[in-house]
Order: sequence, then C-alpha cells, then structure tokens
Amino acid sequence: MTVTLPEGFRAAGVTAGLKSAGRDIALIVNDGPLHAAAATFTSNRVAAAPVLWSAQAVSDGRADAVVLNSGGANACTGPEGFADTHRTAEHAAQALGLSAQDVLVCSTGLIGQRLRMDLLLPGVEAAVAELGEDEGSALAAAEAIRTTDTVAKTAQASGRGFTIGGIAKGAGMLAPGMATMLAVITTDAELDPSTLDAALREAVRVSFDRADSDGCMSTNDTVVAMASGAHPEAGAHDEEEFRAALTEVCRDLAAQLIADAEGAAHEIAITTIGAATEEQAETAGRAVARSNLFKTAIFGGDPNWGRILAAVGTTDVEFDPSTIDVAVNGVWICRAGGIGEDRSGVDLSERRVEVTIDLKSGEAEATILTNDLTHDYVHENSAYST
Amino acid sequence: MTVTLPEGFRAAGVTAGLKSAGRDIALIVNDGPLHAAAATFTSNRVAAAPVLWSAQAVSDGRADAVVLNSGGANACTGPEGFADTHRTAEHAAQALGLSAQDVLVCSTGLIGQRLRMDLLLPGVEAAVAELGEDEGSALAAAEAIRTTDTVAKTAQASGRGFTIGGIAKGAGMLAPGMATMLAVITTDAELDPSTLDAALREAVRVSFDRADSDGCMSTNDTVVAMASGAHPEAGAHDEEEFRAALTEVCRDLAAQLIADAEGAAHEIAITTIGAATEEQAETAGRAVARSNLFKTAIFGGDPNWGRILAAVGTTDVEFDPSTIDVAVNGVWICRAGGIGEDRSGVDLSERRVEVTIDLKSGEAEATILTNDLTHDYVHENSAYST
Repeated sequence: MTVTLPEGFRAAGVTAGLKSAGRDIALIVNDGPLHAAAATFTSNRVAAAPVLWSAQAVSDGRADAVVLNSGGANACTGPEGFADTHRTAEHAAQALGLSAQDVLVCSTGLIGQRLRMDLLLPGVEAAVAELGEDEGSALAAAEAIRTTDTVAKTAQASGRGFTIGGIAKGAGMLAPGMATMLAVITTDAELDPSTLDAALREAVRVSFDRADSDGCMSTNDTVVAMASGAHPEAGAHDEEEFRAALTEVCRDLAAQLIADAEGAAHEIAITTIGAATEEQAETAGRAVARSNLFKTAIFGGDPNWGRILAAVGTTDVEFDPSTIDVAVNGVWICRAGGIGEDRSGVDLSERRVEVTIDLKSGEAEATILTNDLTHDYVHENSAYST
Repeated sequence: MTVTLPEGFRAAGVTAGLKSAGRDIALIVNDGPLHAAAATFTSNRVAAAPVLWSAQAVSDGRADAVVLNSGGANACTGPEGFADTHRTAEHAAQALGLSAQDVLVCSTGLIGQRLRMDLLLPGVEAAVAELGEDEGSALAAAEAIRTTDTVAKTAQASGRGFTIGGIAKGAGMLAPGMATMLAVITTDAELDPSTLDAALREAVRVSFDRADSDGCMSTNDTVVAMASGAHPEAGAHDEEEFRAALTEVCRDLAAQLIADAEGAAHEIAITTIGAATEEQAETAGRAVARSNLFKTAIFGGDPNWGRILAAVGTTDVEFDPSTIDVAVNGVWICRAGGIGEDRSGVDLSERRVEVTIDLKSGEAEATILTNDLTHDYVHENSAYST
C-alpha cells in the first residue's frame, strides 16, 4: 500500500512513452484535510528545473500533489526547461482543481535534453484519471519513477495516530548531500509544516544523506513528505515515536537504494566508531566509501585494509595512525594501524559487507552505506546515453 | 640517460626477488661536489615508514643517495616497518661510505606487509656494486621502481649551466596532494637546498599535484630532487630558465603517469578557463576528474556534458549555472548551461581527450590530468592483492 496506506492519499502510475518501455509518470495526491508538506533537495548548484520549481512551491509548507516523471531529468535545459516544469504543474493543477503553486514536480533521467511535453501532458491527464487508494495504484506510482532500478522501492510504518508510507528510486548518481534519488513519503498524522520539516530533515540527514553509492551528486534529488491529518486518531501521535518511524522509513528506503545500485555486487555498511564527533565519523566513512581502490577490492573479494587506512588518512578527522583498528565482517584484520588478525578469516562471499573503523578518539559513530565498483557499473554507465 | 645525464650521478637497478619477476631495487647516488636535495611527500596522514624516514633525513637539505624498492610499500607496518627502513638506509650508507642520515628511502607496492629484509639488504649491496653513469644503469633504475606500470617513465631537459634528468613510477593510486608515485629528479646545476626546494615545490604543484587518475591518495608518494653542482658551467644557469625546465620535466613525467595509468583507455586533460582564481580552476577540474560517471562516459565514447556540469555543481567555485560553457575535443556541446553544438561532432576515438570548461568568472585557468574508468581498471584493482 505504501504511499496510499496513510489515509487521505491517492496515487497513480501510467505509461506516457517518455521511456522506451514501462510506466513513466507518477502522481500522488493529498486529499487532506491537512496539506502540510516538507521537502529536501540536492545541494548541487546545477539544480534541475523541477528542483527549482518545487523548492519554491513547497516553501509555504503546503503541497496538494506531486507529479514525478522518469525518462528525462529536465536538468541543464535553461529557461525553456523551467517553462516545461511550470506547464506540467499548471496542467496537473487544472485537471485536479488545484493551484499550480501547490503541485510539486520531480524528474529523473538523462541530463541536457528537453522533455517530450507532447507525451508528458497527456500522461499527466491519464494519471489523474487513474488515481486510486488501492495497493495497485501505489505500486504503479513506485514503478513509474524507476530508471535503471531493477525493483520498485517501498517502505511503511505506523504507530498510534499515524501511518507512514514511502516510495523511492535511485540506481545511479547516488551521493551525499542527498543520495541521488527521488522519494515521496506520505503520512496521515496531524502535523504542522514546520514540525514535519524538522522531522524530515533529521530523518534525511541520517538516512539518504549517508547513502553514497558512487560519490556522484545528482542535479535532481528530491525527498518530499506530505501529511494529510486524515488518520482516525489524528493528533494522538507521540512526536518522538513519529520521528523514529519516519527515520526508519527513510533508512529502509536508503538501504533499498544501495541494495539495488547500478551494477553493484556488494552493499557495504561502513561504520566508524570511536570518533570525536558524529560528523567526523561520517567524514571518515565517506572517504572510504569514495575510494575506488577500496570498492574494487571488495568486488574482488579482497579485505584490503591498507586501502581503508589510506582513505581515512586523506581526511582531517581525529585519529592516530598507530592506534586505529579496522574490522571487515567482524574480523579485526588491522590492529593499531598494522597487521591484525588473519585476513583469510574474512568471508566476502555474501552481498552484505560490514566494515568497522575504530578511530579511538571519542564516543561518536556513524554508518555510511555504499557499493563496490564492478564491471557492471562501468558497463551500465559507459553505455547509458549512447 | 635521464638521472645519469646530469654530471655527478650514478644509478643502478637490480633484481632482489621482492617482486615475482624483474628488477625491484633502484639506487641513485649524488657524487657531488654539491649534495643539495629537496623532496615533497604524500599529504596522507597514514604515511609509510620510508616517507617518515626520508622527510626527516632530507630536512637538512642534503641527500647523497636514494634507495627505492618496488614489491612492498612498507606502509602500515608499525615500528618494525620503520626499523626496516632505517636498516635499509644504514646498510646502503655503509656500502657507500656515507652517513645513513644522507640516504633517502622510497618504497612502493602492497600496503600492510613487512618487507623481505633477507632479500632487500643483499639487493642493496648488489645495487651498490652495479652503480654506473651509463644509460643502461639509469634505465635499470627506472625499470626497478615499476609496479603495474607497463613502461618505464623518464624525462630530461637542459639549459645553460644545467642538465635535468628524471624517472618516475605511477600506475595506481594516483591522486592529488601528490600524484601517487615515486619520482627522482637529478640536476648538475649549482643550487643551494632552499632554492632547489622552492623550485621543486612550484614544479610539483602544477604537475604531479594536478595528475588525478583515480582520486586515491597513496601512503608513499615521494618526489626527490638532488643537485650535484657538477655541470662544467655550474653556477651559470638562469634561475627562471632552470625553474621552467624543472617544471617541464615534472609535467612530462606526470603526463606519462596518466598515459600509463592502470587500465585506462583514455588520458583526459580537463582545462578550466575563465576562473576567478587558479585554485578555483583546479577545484572545478578535480571535481570532474573524480566523477565516476564522467569517467565511465568517456570510456563509453559518450561526451556526456551533463555529468560534467553535475560535477562542477558540487563545488563552491564561482560560476553561474546559466552561463557556463563546456567543450569536448573542441566542440562546444554545452553553451550557457544548456544544449550547445551537436554532440555527434565530438570524436572520442583517440586516447587523448581535451575537456574545456569556461566558468566565465575571471581570467585564471588550470589543467587537471585524469583517466577514464574502465573494465580493466576494475579488473586490475579487484585482483591486485589476491
């Protein structure tokens, strides 16, 4: 049910012909009674037209609908591209009886190409016609935002006075400052926009922002959260419980993105412990996550801790190279900056890999999720646009 | 002739058995009359034992000899590894009749393994016995520092009152703050250590520091320069001419490293023009050089300027996303942040690729050298230590 599991939401996913095959336009509508919304966007300065539009449209804390398309990012398309996004919002608003200012737009696909508006606008109308509260409608929406994702990503959670549903797409260009992706999260909790915004930012900080598949930050990343207040016990939720559930939904979706990243053979959780601050733990983990040599080593089944140390050594986080420890899948193969337990004890045959780095400099920790670097990654990304 | 082309130098390269095949110990001796020396080292905080040793040994501006070994980096080997480097310097010094404090040591190869001192020390003796001023000796030294390099790298230059020779090795872990590599540059110019040091730092800044093959900074990078003052017209050189020639030798070696980087199919020069400062030009170029999506696109013959803009957009350099231009091999496929000339006019069939980014924010420029990301890179680096 995901995004239609919370009361007050309808969804649809249709085929407009923007992609060579499959659904490519999703629509999610919040029927209220509340229309609180919050969103976070890519920090890339080359932001796509839909990011520029949606950031402005959501700034008043209200959104009634989100239109998402795959088959084109509408990035680096100039004023014409922005006009295309504006027309998309106007068109959806008219068909739904809303104000265009309350319609957010998200796009994903190739950069530097105009969208086929002759296909997109009829597709938006078709989506409006197919809106439903059933599970099939929510799944169709999750399907429609896929690009090279091999599976649709959904997550949900609930507690007293609230239900949360979410969909996301990822696959390539996954990096921090926002894991390059689109996600829409719905809830029927009774929340004002600023409370929703604060909860979303905290959830994104420790979930999507810590998913770093290939170090490449997209121009289109968007996470939208909408609250309808339509829960039977709306207003009865505990704020802490809601925040924890929202964070869990975001973590769940982020993990699914990493599990299905382009061409990956391993999903890798890099946990840095003993850091002076949480930020330093994140910095150390991200440096390792961005080392192509570390990533190829994991692909090769090689627990190469020297490449992990070399990556941490490029940062300015507090640690002493002569005391740092590193474990791979529970085996402490680096002790005190040197050779530790026998590396032949490390089993890398499973997809999931756990790296633990102990900086011995404090109590803080953080986990970064990443992938290995494989032949399939090179293949998919060298052939993508040609 | 390279490192033995300048007067006052002898070299040797021998096989000690540290690698599975081929020469693996190089020795370069400065017979004077001057023994001025300067060196730059990796800025990686996980610095290898030979880096720690050599940085201290060269701090007085004097070096009489450099011992270099492939077949082991002697990094992350703790106090025992440092003792191994110390013994290597002592052993070479004794055989050459020098002080160990005047012998620099460089190592390259796998991280996290002790060196086979039972092979290395006899190898140092053999190298001392084979020292020669001939071309074969210089080439043997260049051969002995190779790891996965497919060819030996040498360069030379001369002017009134000076000759310069250089050798280098690179291949993997090539990144900034020092292109991960070893290089030894000799000259017979009459130079005091501080002048040599200033000239070397400026030359390295615009050459090796701007070679960024895979974004991974090594624990062992070292560039050593030694001046013998043995030129027949020693002291007659023009300081500007010498600096320019030294920079040219460093640029030549850096370009050779990129041309022979592990598994690369293209060598890519990313020139950023119209930057507010030279540092900003370097930052923009480096961001592109580190984008795996850009690198795989070039491998796939795809002039994907959207990925170039997305990479520049992650930086804080001065530019306006709506005015930036990008050319690939002379075709301005991105104009004013949007679609420019026809991308089908870009020919990527040659190894050499020229990317030009015009930030339209000033007069400064810089060129970063990098490689594409290929199946061979993944293959070589996933299989390296297993």
